[in-house]
Amino acid sequence: MKKYVIIVAGGKGLRMGGEIPKQFIPVKGKPVLMRTLEAFYAYDNQIELIVVLPVAQQDYWKQLCVQYGFTLPHRIADGGETRFHSVRNGLRLVDGEGIVGVHDGVRPFVSQEVIASCYDMAALKHAVIPVIDVVETVRHIVSAEDSETVPRDCYKLVQTPQVFTTEVLKRAYAQEYIPAFTDDASVVEALGLPVYLVAGNRENIKLTTPFDLKVAEVLI
Amino acid sequence: MKKYVIIVAGGKGLRMGGEIPKQFIPVKGKPVLMRTLEAFYAYDNQIELIVVLPVAQQDYWKQLCVQYGFTLPHRIADGGETRFHSVRNGLRLVDGEGIVGVHDGVRPFVSQEVIASCYDMAALKHAVIPVIDVVETVRHIVSAEDSETVPRDCYKLVQTPQVFTTEVLKRAYAQEYIPAFTDDASVVEALGLPVYLVAGNRENIKLTTPFDLKVAEVLI
Repeated sequence: MKKYVIIVAGGKGLRMGGEIPKQFIPVKGKPVLMRTLEAFYAYDNQIELIVVLPVAQQDYWKQLCVQYGFTLPHRIADGGETRFHSVRNGLRLVDGEGIVGVHDGVRPFVSQEVIASCYDMAALKHAVIPVIDVVETVRHIVSAEDSETVPRDCYKLVQTPQVFTTEVLKRAYAQEYIPAFTDDASVVEALGLPVYLVAGNRENIKLTTPFDLKVAEVLI
Repeated sequence: MKKYVIIVAGGKGLRMGGEIPKQFIPVKGKPVLMRTLEAFYAYDNQIELIVVLPVAQQDYWKQLCVQYGFTLPHRIADGGETRFHSVRNGLRLVDGEGIVGVHDGVRPFVSQEVIASCYDMAALKHAVIPVIDVVETVRHIVSAEDSETVPRDCYKLVQTPQVFTTEVLKRAYAQEYIPAFTDDASVVEALGLPVYLVAGNRENIKLTTPFDLKVAEVLI
């Protein structure tokens, strides 16, 4: 079955405190986004790589590819106003039937096992996401003045890739956008479809702060 | 006002995959638990340090202190069957009025600012815990087959130190144990008292897996 992955890289880099968007920050000498693409290419060198980037960053990205000698074949879609709109733009480049994953550009440490289990299960279950346990105690914020401890066994943290049959994901993204669409699973669930959970890998962190970059340096 | 901290170090080390309990694993050449004690001593060199350790580990700890030339004054309480029982044992060594924190032995990276804000606020608010935002999407597990996305703004991850007036914490720990007591805040809330939240620091991770140890090496 044909496989696709839409790598969403819309970061403006503000939370990193620098001017360079976080997906382009080099980790051990190579921009994060390139490392993320390589992870999916390592899983399957026939996978169709689709990168979603803000229009204003696309020339810079192409320059980086030349500069780093990065030659993995990939197509580029335009970033949208929200993550939802970015994924929808990427999905327009998915031109056949098969399995499509959506992955954060700043999660280069997804394991080969997690990619494989998500894609394998998606063929059977139509909608699959990787999750990990919560290590900390979880508190539910009821209001500015009121919060409560909740049982952490009842919560999981969601990673990417979130993987679907192309038919399901296209039908999901044909819906009108609402702010409750925070990830692809929530968009698919709005169709009334169940989402299947598989085990993620703890190292598959989203690089969003300078602290994460320090962690990234050791994980390479 | 007199200050105390109860450092709970009950780990058997199983999750780390090794035989050495996690609180004794050296990070950059020094056992984690020593680094945790040093963080509180750096905050206030008059603070009363109370370490709760399983009876079977106490001799080993004393040997480690000699071996590493670790001389910070501290008292040792016996670890109990659960975290609740361990904290209660430590609390028996709190022999005066003041402010008492409870902290995980495997959280050496708590910042000086977070310790100070927890202790300062506890004098005013009686019960204070540090929390951080959730970066990932949060999923609520309803049953083995059913889960749902929940708004992550409504959840926080709880760290330590959890800090209280001695009067409040002693009253809380005079209650009968129930399994829902997963942290000190939940014990205090069972008295019907509110818990005040302050900002934690993201680096204040609990070292529970080999991955965390790799992260720890960069944080030192």
